Amino acid sequence: MTKKIILLRHGQSTWNLENRFTGWTDVPLTPQGEQEARQAGELIKQQGLVFSRAFTSYLRRAVKTLNIVLEVLNQEWIPVEKSWRLNEKHYGALQGLNKSETAAKYGEEQVQQWRRAYDVPAPALTAQDPRCPSADIRYRLVPPQYLPLTESLKDTIERILPYWKEEIFPRLEKEDNLLVVAHGNSLRGIIKYLKNIPDEQISKLNLPTGAPYVFEFDDRLNLVKDYFLGDPAEIQKRMAAVAAQGKKK
Amino acid sequence: MTKKIILLRHGQSTWNLENRFTGWTDVPLTPQGEQEARQAGELIKQQGLVFSRAFTSYLRRAVKTLNIVLEVLNQEWIPVEKSWRLNEKHYGALQGLNKSETAAKYGEEQVQQWRRAYDVPAPALTAQDPRCPSADIRYRLVPPQYLPLTESLKDTIERILPYWKEEIFPRLEKEDNLLVVAHGNSLRGIIKYLKNIPDEQISKLNLPTGAPYVFEFDDRLNLVKDYFLGDPAEIQKRMAAVAAQGKKK
Repeated sequence: MTKKIILLRHGQSTWNLENRFTGWTDVPLTPQGEQEARQAGELIKQQGLVFSRAFTSYLRRAVKTLNIVLEVLNQEWIPVEKSWRLNEKHYGALQGLNKSETAAKYGEEQVQQWRRAYDVPAPALTAQDPRCPSADIRYRLVPPQYLPLTESLKDTIERILPYWKEEIFPRLEKEDNLLVVAHGNSLRGIIKYLKNIPDEQISKLNLPTGAPYVFEFDDRLNLVKDYFLGDPAEIQKRMAAVAAQGKKK
Repeated sequence: MTKKIILLRHGQSTWNLENRFTGWTDVPLTPQGEQEARQAGELIKQQGLVFSRAFTSYLRRAVKTLNIVLEVLNQEWIPVEKSWRLNEKHYGALQGLNKSETAAKYGEEQVQQWRRAYDVPAPALTAQDPRCPSADIRYRLVPPQYLPLTESLKDTIERILPYWKEEIFPRLEKEDNLLVVAHGNSLRGIIKYLKNIPDEQISKLNLPTGAPYVFEFDDRLNLVKDYFLGDPAEIQKRMAAVAAQGKKK
């Protein structure tokens, strides 16, 4: 019998809809985002799995997506662990800016680099910026040296992997099925690691919102196969929509 | 500065509305129950507290109430711990029966005793009954000898107190504010213990749904005072409604 980990990107948020750089900004889901979460829950429900445990970030768009999925599954009772390490990539001083306007101002190429280059972070917040994580009470217990003022995808992946390796993956030794609800870039980090995707390739993976991504492991915890749940045409459409967000319009 | 624990009974469930014995049956909130949860969230929000941690049961009416409160508070990121020990009193073979019909059949006095006598359990489930907790996957990790076939209020309190003493209350040593969202009888157990209420008195405490009950502790963790949040007249009305549920009509 295989063990499964399902990765799920949260549904559409208000700033996805407004096409703004979100990062660690704690914006809610839109009604469409809640609907995507319910659909994801229905797809997962068809698998007939009982999850041993679920993991999510400190950001409400992920927590709410998880809560909706657990309601659809009638599995509200499973243990849920939250970690800042599963947060989205920190977008530094770009957080709050419109992606198309930023592209018009700095050029599509520059924005594409901030969005997709492996090791180029967006401009950093100054330490006095009210958007700094150190000004947010939810991060009060995180050692200050870990709290970013901006991040490249590389930085994001480097802070996620310890949590994956130490807290999430080892649970599979004693437990059967895990659910991880997080963000486009934090999930990229996990997928890159699981599938050995090279640095220059990983940013081309445009994870669709609300499409459950299943990873199956054998009893030695080797990855056997991976696949999305749902209609492949719909998944392609959502991937293309994510990829197009950095265009001028 | 005082530390606070807020106890909250979940909002109206479908079986509260249908006046049926619920116990461990996992029924959802009604729309009114969700509204009660939001109102409770607004009352708690006015206190300006940040919770270190929240606790709830394995039953969705409590989990959902907690989720709604955390959304209103913008505190979806706090750690949440769930335990079967915070579940409602198990109502044995009465689970699913209408309270008024049961009163008409067995007499109000008998029903009042099942509902309110301190140490009289309802008739027990047989071990083959599909309503047995041992048939429910969520309790698979609970040692079988702890899983009830029925409970008196005394039994309920005896299974709750170890969790209160070992998992909830000691958190106050290092943390400031805790939130516990549970059920009429599981919360009775905690309140009885905190306020030293005698056995024969505790069943007269009719905890209203959705009314946050605040307990304040000094820095030696002695109880300083306790009070409900919200409009006292409204709270009295809800307490009376709970007390009237066991009448024939």
